[in-house]
Amino acid sequence: MKILVAQLNPLIGDLTGNTEKILKTLKDAKKQGIELVLFPELTICGYPPEDLVFHEAFIQQMMQKLEEIIPETEGMMVLVGLVRPNLYHGEKALFNSAAVIQDRQLIGFQDKWLLPNYDVFNERRYFEPGHFTRTWEWKGKRIGIVICEDIWQHAGYVDFTRYERDPIVALIPYKPDLLLNLSASPYQYQKPDVRVKVCAKAARTLGCPVILCCQVGANGQLIFDGYSVYVNKDGELCQLGKGFAEDAMKIDTKATACKAPFKYNVMEDLYRALVFGVKDYARKNGFTKACLGLSGGIDSALVACIGADALGAENLLGVRMPSEYSSKHSLEDAEVLAKKLGIPLQTIPIQDVFDHYKTLLSPSFKGKKEDVTEENLQARIRGNILMALSNKFGDLVLSTGNKSEVALGYSTLYGDMCGGLGVLGDVMKTLVYELARWVNRNEEIIPQSTIDKPPSAELRLNQKDLDSLPDYGIVDKVLEGYVEDYLTREEIAEKYQIPIEKVHQLVHKIHLAEYKRRQGPPILRVSKKVFGLGRHYPIVQGWAKRL
Amino acid sequence: MKILVAQLNPLIGDLTGNTEKILKTLKDAKKQGIELVLFPELTICGYPPEDLVFHEAFIQQMMQKLEEIIPETEGMMVLVGLVRPNLYHGEKALFNSAAVIQDRQLIGFQDKWLLPNYDVFNERRYFEPGHFTRTWEWKGKRIGIVICEDIWQHAGYVDFTRYERDPIVALIPYKPDLLLNLSASPYQYQKPDVRVKVCAKAARTLGCPVILCCQVGANGQLIFDGYSVYVNKDGELCQLGKGFAEDAMKIDTKATACKAPFKYNVMEDLYRALVFGVKDYARKNGFTKACLGLSGGIDSALVACIGADALGAENLLGVRMPSEYSSKHSLEDAEVLAKKLGIPLQTIPIQDVFDHYKTLLSPSFKGKKEDVTEENLQARIRGNILMALSNKFGDLVLSTGNKSEVALGYSTLYGDMCGGLGVLGDVMKTLVYELARWVNRNEEIIPQSTIDKPPSAELRLNQKDLDSLPDYGIVDKVLEGYVEDYLTREEIAEKYQIPIEKVHQLVHKIHLAEYKRRQGPPILRVSKKVFGLGRHYPIVQGWAKRL
Repeated sequence: MKILVAQLNPLIGDLTGNTEKILKTLKDAKKQGIELVLFPELTICGYPPEDLVFHEAFIQQMMQKLEEIIPETEGMMVLVGLVRPNLYHGEKALFNSAAVIQDRQLIGFQDKWLLPNYDVFNERRYFEPGHFTRTWEWKGKRIGIVICEDIWQHAGYVDFTRYERDPIVALIPYKPDLLLNLSASPYQYQKPDVRVKVCAKAARTLGCPVILCCQVGANGQLIFDGYSVYVNKDGELCQLGKGFAEDAMKIDTKATACKAPFKYNVMEDLYRALVFGVKDYARKNGFTKACLGLSGGIDSALVACIGADALGAENLLGVRMPSEYSSKHSLEDAEVLAKKLGIPLQTIPIQDVFDHYKTLLSPSFKGKKEDVTEENLQARIRGNILMALSNKFGDLVLSTGNKSEVALGYSTLYGDMCGGLGVLGDVMKTLVYELARWVNRNEEIIPQSTIDKPPSAELRLNQKDLDSLPDYGIVDKVLEGYVEDYLTREEIAEKYQIPIEKVHQLVHKIHLAEYKRRQGPPILRVSKKVFGLGRHYPIVQGWAKRL
Repeated sequence: MKILVAQLNPLIGDLTGNTEKILKTLKDAKKQGIELVLFPELTICGYPPEDLVFHEAFIQQMMQKLEEIIPETEGMMVLVGLVRPNLYHGEKALFNSAAVIQDRQLIGFQDKWLLPNYDVFNERRYFEPGHFTRTWEWKGKRIGIVICEDIWQHAGYVDFTRYERDPIVALIPYKPDLLLNLSASPYQYQKPDVRVKVCAKAARTLGCPVILCCQVGANGQLIFDGYSVYVNKDGELCQLGKGFAEDAMKIDTKATACKAPFKYNVMEDLYRALVFGVKDYARKNGFTKACLGLSGGIDSALVACIGADALGAENLLGVRMPSEYSSKHSLEDAEVLAKKLGIPLQTIPIQDVFDHYKTLLSPSFKGKKEDVTEENLQARIRGNILMALSNKFGDLVLSTGNKSEVALGYSTLYGDMCGGLGVLGDVMKTLVYELARWVNRNEEIIPQSTIDKPPSAELRLNQKDLDSLPDYGIVDKVLEGYVEDYLTREEIAEKYQIPIEKVHQLVHKIHLAEYKRRQGPPILRVSKKVFGLGRHYPIVQGWAKRL
């Protein structure tokens, strides 16, 4: 069978625009003699539509769009994802569903059975689980249909949930000749090959090929990376869609040869994810330009590389904002980097404004020593300047804080936390270094001195991160253990050989910084546990207290 | 039967501190000859514990705390709320449960059946619905037990969900003599009497008295108001717990006389909710003092009244931060208010710093006219000053934006949106006026001129809100229709007689401001649809586009 896997990039909620993409795809497919077209999960509205689905008009318009699509499917079987009303029993009034269309006839719907409701997923808020399954006959073949999560538990890749039903097992008695999956499966560091394994497992269970169509696109925290999958009945990878781009992957199930197995460089893939995350977010928000503070440090250097690749060097403005505490080498490093990347660079010294603030506040601060207040003030002046540039010229402000800083609150709220997008907020400091070295793999783009020098916010004389924090190697291990793996503090101390007092201290800091994170920019999600969408903690809590 | 309804105020996650409160309550109860003690939902950890429950150690410690409680129940039946492991089937590994203890014996658990997963509730993320019910015999009476949501659908007060099972109906065959409910039911404008109606309905269905114990406390967005309920078998209100305070309500079910019906002033109740929201959030965060910008406008005036009542006038600092656009009458109004309230007032003029910013940015802004950039800059300087005071003196910054502004993004990110708590972010502008008039019901506390003058941000010459926005009467109707009631734009235009173009415009603005709200302070929830916790929308979407 000749199949088209339409790996599309929707704009969430843009029912008209997304339907136009669907119609164009169908037109092209017909020309090419395609017999079956597979779209991603919730094709018409994009995933995740969130509370938009609570508007009745939204659901009605989606059904109207389906009516526009149906007549354009001459000679083809077409699977389109959408939200449909649940007219039966059940807690929720909607299904996450696939419309099954054959040759201009809507022949039914296949609803999603397993609704992820953990980590970044929230589907039980909206949807009722589906209850029926079957195969659908087309061109003499029995075709099974599942939606995203439906295939994952069968391969043992679901955490925090143990579904009672297995849609893959439920399909065994129907003896499908082919299994299709409509997906919107967000990127995660080291994940793309997991998706292949998941398909392979279902293929071996059912003894039939599996084709999974992934949504692509970035719309805030979640980055959908694409990489649609086709595995044969033995679970061997035959074809893979493009990463981080739309793709129209054509498959001929009669062709026997399988392509080479999936190989990818995890560091390259992570970098591409971040670039795509910035690029697509900017595009969908109508930004063509961005700006960021270039401190000469490694975080802003890496974000500059990502931003330049995402938007074009000429569209990224680097801004140096020195105060009396800025070191000469930092200013030089920033300049060298800007030249290397070819991005425009402005220098806006903050000392004068900073001094005026201090004078202005001196009556209020009488008798008080300088402390973190003055450090934060510098960071906030810099934030104001970037926001002023953004307001005046329409630049997207890229925030440069890394995950380790975000975790510990080692950052200034309304200061360096300003920005429309937190580019590295899900990348730990140790991984930032790895990425920087990867960027420099062929030539020195990020100055080596930026990589080598000890990290410093340069907000007071000779300040180093190490003055207030343990080594990032230790910080990142505690983060991994506590935030990502939910280990106990004792287990973390044991596993990583870190003194328990240090673990307690860091865990306390993580909880204490919750109030800052609550007001931080949306962070591009690339790890298995991102702050914000994936992690809901109370601002005030009494469990992880200071010792 | 002599019953104690222990309306406690827990600190979320403070298993030790909360257990101490429980033990103290039990000790007092024993002294007073109490036969049954009813605690609120999730007593040991507080509600909502959010992702803390994913830590195994958290659940284990909670079970250990239960072991400490059991021996202290001599001669009494005691119901304690907690999270317990689900060792049976089901998607989720935990139950939201009530431990049933009788005279130093744990005799079982009653799990919550109906798990709210809409609006501000997220219980399907954590819990498996309970499946069993029964009555529990004590002192010759059959006692039915349900948890919070379990009682609500029966009275028809659940939206966005239609549960298939009804725990109240399920109890009918067991013929309970008394129904007990462990609750954590957040405050909502005009809601307290609804809780009484809900209990009355269950009482009439089961033909037995109903006692509902509410958690009290505020911990961020949610304000738990208390008002525990006792209705007799005819559904008549007999006793009501205190509002916005801990209470130990003693009930003698043999006493036949019922007290007077529940009467409350909705405006007074709303004001008390806001005061309590500020007070308890500050206390649990360790703040004894707060500050706010006093512009002379109505929002900051009202927040000053609330803050002074919450923390004591001497602990609230008002700050006037005039620029060249600040009117004389606004400065005077701020001063009059501060005197009236008895709060300290500082004046920190921002013009000089503002001028220096403009000079600093003039090379970058060459050839550009002044625009919203300079307006935002003033707001951000003010934000910086308040944050500097907060950093230096440990003040909580109270944010003063009202719901209408928050909805439309009529505010400056990192400027007037700075703060630890958004006091009026769920109170529409028209309701702000009503509240201000209520504050002034006996004497003029908020200057009448503040109430009478047209609203203005005073960020440019002769600026009025009406220059960029329709009348707040119209804005608030669209908010009510679109955000709270999910009406279509056409229905809103029809219902409120507003031109459809204006409705489209405002709806578009609401969606466009999503990125600002994402970085705003936590807002005290008092309406049926609060921004933030209760409303999840994509930052970028294509459904509600500009016309």
